[in-house]
Amino acid sequence: MRKRIITISRQCGSGGRYIGQRLAKELGIPCYDEKLIDMVAKESGFALDFVEEKGERITGSLLFNIASSLTYATNVLSGNGMSLQDELYFIQNRIIKDLAEKEPCVIVGRCADYVLRERKDCIHVFIRADEKSKLERAVKYYDMSEKDAPSILKKKDKARYNHYKYYTDQEWGMADNYDICLNSGLLGIDGCVNVIKYVLEQE
Amino acid sequence: MRKRIITISRQCGSGGRYIGQRLAKELGIPCYDEKLIDMVAKESGFALDFVEEKGERITGSLLFNIASSLTYATNVLSGNGMSLQDELYFIQNRIIKDLAEKEPCVIVGRCADYVLRERKDCIHVFIRADEKSKLERAVKYYDMSEKDAPSILKKKDKARYNHYKYYTDQEWGMADNYDICLNSGLLGIDGCVNVIKYVLEQE
Repeated sequence: MRKRIITISRQCGSGGRYIGQRLAKELGIPCYDEKLIDMVAKESGFALDFVEEKGERITGSLLFNIASSLTYATNVLSGNGMSLQDELYFIQNRIIKDLAEKEPCVIVGRCADYVLRERKDCIHVFIRADEKSKLERAVKYYDMSEKDAPSILKKKDKARYNHYKYYTDQEWGMADNYDICLNSGLLGIDGCVNVIKYVLEQE
Repeated sequence: MRKRIITISRQCGSGGRYIGQRLAKELGIPCYDEKLIDMVAKESGFALDFVEEKGERITGSLLFNIASSLTYATNVLSGNGMSLQDELYFIQNRIIKDLAEKEPCVIVGRCADYVLRERKDCIHVFIRADEKSKLERAVKYYDMSEKDAPSILKKKDKARYNHYKYYTDQEWGMADNYDICLNSGLLGIDGCVNVIKYVLEQE
């Protein structure tokens, strides 16, 4: 079966989101990255920042954990039993499933590979890069200082790893979860887009 | 810099070794898989079976662990301080480094990605496959019964994971260690060979 849906998971600073956007443009299909965050925020009623941050990261933020526990307690009392982040996860999942049903598209991040794991019309991509390339991108495009970038990138990826592990019980970045993993530090943005397109032509 | 050396790590049953052989043939360069095992056995004086098994796997075999501990104790007393498996690992490493220095080639397994990590002229590939495809290959080509294949494959990969973790302190199969990871269950043998060749042409 031809692959209609491409999910792209990516390390922070690897250019994976941009690869997703470029790929979608070349294939003439929509790319759901910020657009997906907007949709989830609109549907859930959560703030955009909250959806962006908590929709694919688990951090050790004390304030968030307190707020989340309070909501959890309230939800348990009202029979719901979900934390804020759980609620967000399930709304996000439903939207991702609806998108995959509706039209061919590229979906960036948000555990989409796991959410759509049962579908036969998806191809799951993971983009990584070497430290040097990630730091260069972070300083050039994400407005990070050379001093701060290493710890910020590490922290963000750790939070993605924790989120994925918590909701999927799988290891984020383990080749077993993807059909193709690429080092964008070696291949560049164009190279990655070309290789994914080539893979799509193979089957 | 053009990539002269391709290392291929692979899950048991993924066809990774065959992909390495096919790729080498198409590129007109040697493939070191069984050939490497022969060379290591010859140089180390260890039996072929021992090199094949212990050169990329750590199992919980009681007999091996006792023999290894005894050798380790003897070696410590004589000032060497290495277990049998350590000795094998270091001889194997030296041979892999010599091969990479000598000529363009494909090297299958044996932590070659880690051993050659400092070289800029290598590309590191990991081949995985879904369970169903691996079982089919195992029954068809490796003479395993349908009943036994799942546990044998799992055990072999676990032993490779342990070996890699022990000697490299990295996770075997984690995308971060490779330039490209492919699902041979999706792409097939030909597809994987084609994609690796395409990647080699990209840079």
